[in-house]
Parts: sequence; structure tokens; C-alpha cells
Amino acid sequence: MKVALLAHEKFPDDAKTAVGVLRYADYDVVAVLDRTNAGTRVNDSLPDVQDAPVVASMDDVEADVDALVIGVAPIGGGFEESWRPDVRAALERGCDVYAGLHYFLAEDEEFAGLADEHGAELWDVRKPPEDLGVSDGVAADVDATVVTTVGTDCNVGKMTATRELYEAAQERGMDAAFVATGQTGILIEGSGIPVDRVISDFTAGAVERMVVEAAEDHDYVLVEGQGSIVHPAYSGVTVGIVHGSMPDYQVLCHEVGRDSVHGYDQALPPVDSFPERYETFAEPVSDSPVAAGMLNTRSVDDDADAEDAVAEFSDSIGVPADDPVRFGTDDVLEVIM
Amino acid sequence: MKVALLAHEKFPDDAKTAVGVLRYADYDVVAVLDRTNAGTRVNDSLPDVQDAPVVASMDDVEADVDALVIGVAPIGGGFEESWRPDVRAALERGCDVYAGLHYFLAEDEEFAGLADEHGAELWDVRKPPEDLGVSDGVAADVDATVVTTVGTDCNVGKMTATRELYEAAQERGMDAAFVATGQTGILIEGSGIPVDRVISDFTAGAVERMVVEAAEDHDYVLVEGQGSIVHPAYSGVTVGIVHGSMPDYQVLCHEVGRDSVHGYDQALPPVDSFPERYETFAEPVSDSPVAAGMLNTRSVDDDADAEDAVAEFSDSIGVPADDPVRFGTDDVLEVIM
Repeated sequence: MKVALLAHEKFPDDAKTAVGVLRYADYDVVAVLDRTNAGTRVNDSLPDVQDAPVVASMDDVEADVDALVIGVAPIGGGFEESWRPDVRAALERGCDVYAGLHYFLAEDEEFAGLADEHGAELWDVRKPPEDLGVSDGVAADVDATVVTTVGTDCNVGKMTATRELYEAAQERGMDAAFVATGQTGILIEGSGIPVDRVISDFTAGAVERMVVEAAEDHDYVLVEGQGSIVHPAYSGVTVGIVHGSMPDYQVLCHEVGRDSVHGYDQALPPVDSFPERYETFAEPVSDSPVAAGMLNTRSVDDDADAEDAVAEFSDSIGVPADDPVRFGTDDVLEVIM
Repeated sequence: MKVALLAHEKFPDDAKTAVGVLRYADYDVVAVLDRTNAGTRVNDSLPDVQDAPVVASMDDVEADVDALVIGVAPIGGGFEESWRPDVRAALERGCDVYAGLHYFLAEDEEFAGLADEHGAELWDVRKPPEDLGVSDGVAADVDATVVTTVGTDCNVGKMTATRELYEAAQERGMDAAFVATGQTGILIEGSGIPVDRVISDFTAGAVERMVVEAAEDHDYVLVEGQGSIVHPAYSGVTVGIVHGSMPDYQVLCHEVGRDSVHGYDQALPPVDSFPERYETFAEPVSDSPVAAGMLNTRSVDDDADAEDAVAEFSDSIGVPADDPVRFGTDDVLEVIM
């Protein structure tokens, strides 16, 4: 499927969703829309993902496109009115539009009308299903091996770690499923439930449903975690995913140098305290050891320094660790196989 | 204000909301509707709350009534069609209707029409405000002393413990506020946010908002907890309340004899492990010692046995404890003052 990615003024550093789609999705990206970088190419800034031209607007996309994907997630999840001409142009070409915003495109009168008129679909991936319920407490009964990523903080690389693990498992011929719980993961996978948007009582239930379904057809179920057990705002979502998925293994994700909660005036506890935090929390519901770690070393220039950082992280948490983007996931994969 | 309580076929044992209103609310209860117990009086089964006649239907309520309160909460939170004639009759008398159901009366076409026609209000207490957001992580900065009840399980008496503590504090002349987080507490207090119904990302933020507002006008803020940190379905809500309220003290609630999670095939960990579970969880966000306990001894007939049970509970968790309904809250109050 051919897609264009909207990432105005944010590509690539603040366009997490667009970069995730370029790196991991099965879509064929024909263009990135960023009016401040028009004329460049994706590979100018991101050499290790699929290449595409960066253009100023949807009108500059000459190739056939099946869908326009909103590839930026502003704080608050609102819709920027400066994007409206591109969304309008896409719909007028009969092109679907996918978005992970809190603002639902399907509830926008103009977009709903245009979609209807031109036979295009609006997919608001952040809109949860209507028929969720409370957890039955049964995820531990599935036959598959369930692995859930957890973190020291938000935005340390849980989605990336889970996705890299999934791709590496598939390359080894393992029958793995990726359970997406956030908008980027859902856009990449093409399915999932935005767990941070469900009714709080249904957090664990939403995850349980996805795990049980995925386990019917797969030997390994890899669950994308969210937030952190020490996060002042998001811990409820984090722990709902842990209790809802009842994993056989937890994989602890961290970013080198992160020592306070992103955006909050709160120090992170020592990294070596996290395995026990997550295991003690999980234990009354399921025996879920933190069996491996994933370290994000994007801020470290030198590969040897990054390797040292991964070794130090592994030592401190007492289990094998990888940087999934820089060094692959072999050590972690060995543990969970 | 004069209210009638609807509790058909459930009064008093399965009508938690009706009993809570009878015991704690400032309302003057003029009748309880229960067609299977019509002709009896409230004090026949509950001698220690305000008395009222039990009648078969709204048509049998001759007294003036300002509001009909739905006093039962069926599993799933649906509306029982057999209640419709009573709700209809109430609205036709211009009487407001309050409900804590997942089914919103205001979205019922007949009820919305009747309310409009007769100038009556429909108050769905389980409908959260639309303008909630993520926590700013600031509840620890308030001037008031914040006390949050936590529990070993659902339905062990957190609302009751919090409410008894609130009433006892007021009797001592302490300037206390009650922060309601569930439907019964909200119906009793007349305000609050149903935290189990908010978007999961906003769990802590909803509680933070209530704590900050209450602390502006009060010296003590008593927060009604929900669920349990070991609950397979509800732990996300539980911990969101702990991190959102950042309490100075946590009060651990338990029911004597409870050794498995209500409705789930899961053993509870030893009671003496809970203080550390809650303190370790809270600590990265706020230093919140479990400073007291509340034991529900409703299943124990003999007062001396109940006293022994409270003493044993206190010993096991290493802090003072009370049974708030049976023996009052003096020991706990001393700790938090």
C-alpha cells in the first residue's frame, strides 16, 4: 500500500510516528509532507530507512497514494488547522486518511463529508472499540510465550524495542505477533487498541483481549508497553498493561543518561531498582521476571561507548541487554526463546 | 433535600449505594423502593441508619420528593427495564433522578424528554467531566494533609472507611474534605469524579484536580481509594489514585477473612506485605507511608472476636488500626492529625 506521511515542520526529530512508519511499517512511503524541508529526501536525515522525497503539500505528490498518514502527534493531540488543505486534498483524490490524534477526523464535519463524497476512509486509530470490558484475569492461561516491554520512563524506546524484537523473531522463523497499544504501533501494525484512551476500568481488559486473540494464532506474543511504573501521570496505564498481559517475561527499556521523568520535576529511582519494582508489582497476578533489558543509546556518538553503556546497563539490572537499533536483539531473543 | 431510593429486590444486602446514602448522605430519605420488601421499614434490617418506609413503587410514595436515587448497581452497570415505571413516575412529578450506572439516563430518549417536559434534572454521576487532562504532578505541593485509602481488594470498605474518617474529623472540629472517586461516594457527597470511568491517561489527573481544589479550602483532604494494587483488572485505577493524590498518609483497608480476590481465581498475598507494596509503589512520586489500617469485621458476630481481629490486623501491618463502623476511627485519626 502506498502512503504519504504528513510531518509539517517536525521531520524527522519531532515526528516519531512518521519515523516509526518509515522504519517499521509495510507501507510503501511515496512522500513526506514537510513544508520547511521540501526539496530534500528522507535519506538526507535518516539514512537507514526507506527513502522518499520531502514535499511541501499534498498537491506536490504526483504518485498514486492510497492513504495520507498524519505522522506527527502534537502535545495534547489536537488537529493543526494548517494541515487542513492537505487532508482536504487527499480526500478529494479519494485517498484514505489515518490519524492518531485525540481529535477525531471522523467527527470533523468537512472531512466526514469529503470522505463520504469521494469514497475515502477516515481511520482514527486512537478511537478505542466500544465493546471493551474489565479483565477476566485469564491472559496467563494462553499457550503462547508472552513478552511485555516496560520502561523507566515514557519515550525511552518501548515501541521500537518491541518492534525490533518482533522483526528479529520473524527473521529467525519464530511465529511472533506484535500487540500494539499506542498510536504509532497501531499505525505500523494496522491494528491494536490505544490503551491510553480506553476507560480506566478497562485498561487491563483491553490488553488481555489482544493477548488472548494473538495467542490463538502465534507462539510468541510481544506486547508494546507504555509509560513507567514510577510515572506520576501514566503509571495506571503502565501497570494495567502488565497485569492485563500477565507476561512470561518483562523486558526493561531505558535510555542512557535519563535520570528524571521527562517533562516532570521528579528524579528517576536508580535503574537497578526497576526489575524488582516490576516483578513485585506483577507477582500477585503473574510470575513475570524481568528477563532482559533494552537500552536506547541514540545520544551516544561512539559505538564503543554505546557498547560500554549497554554492558553497564546489563550489569546493573543483572540480566542480558541489547540496544535493539544499534546492535540488534540477539541477546534478548536468546532469553525469551 | 428529600429523596426516595430505588433498590428493587436488593435491599439491603445488595444495595450498597442505597445503604451508603442512608448511612452517610445529608439527604432526608422519605422512602425505599423494593417491591419484594414492601411494607417493612428500613430499621427492620438496618437499625443504625435513618428510618423510612419500604414501598413497592414510586406511586406509593405520598411524601414530597426532590429526587429519586437509583440505589443499586447491577454487574455491568446496566439499566433494568423493570425500573422504568418508577423513573417515569418520578420525572412526571418533576422529581430529579440521580444514577450511578454505566447506562446514562440522559441519553435515554424517553427520560430526557420527560425531564425536559417537567423541569426535572437527570444526574448521571458516572459521567466524567469532558475537560480532564493528564496529571501535572503537583498534588504533593498542596498545604493540606492528604490521606488516601488503599485496599487489599475491591469491596473491603474503602468508601466507608474514608467517610467515617471524614465524619469523625468533622466532629472533632477538623476542617476536612471528602474526595469522592466512585459512584456511591459521589452520590453521598454530591460531587466528585468517577475515576474508573475516565480515559486511562487521565486517571491521576482527575484525582489531582480534586485534591488541589479541595486543598484550597480545607486542612485535611480524605481521598476515597478504589480497587487494589494486586487486582488483575482494576490495579491501574488504584495506582492512578495513589500517584494522582500523592498522599501524606495511606490508610490500608481490609476485610477480615478475605484471602482471595473477589470474583477472580487469585489468592491475595499476605496482608503484612501490603504496606510495603503501596509504599514502594508511591515512593518515587511521593513519600506516602501506610500509617494506619481499617478492618471491616462485618462477618464477625462477637464484638470481642472483632476486637481481637483488629488487634491482629494492626500487629501484622505494624501500625494502628480500627474498624470504623464497629469501633470508630479514633486510633487512625490520632495518626493523621
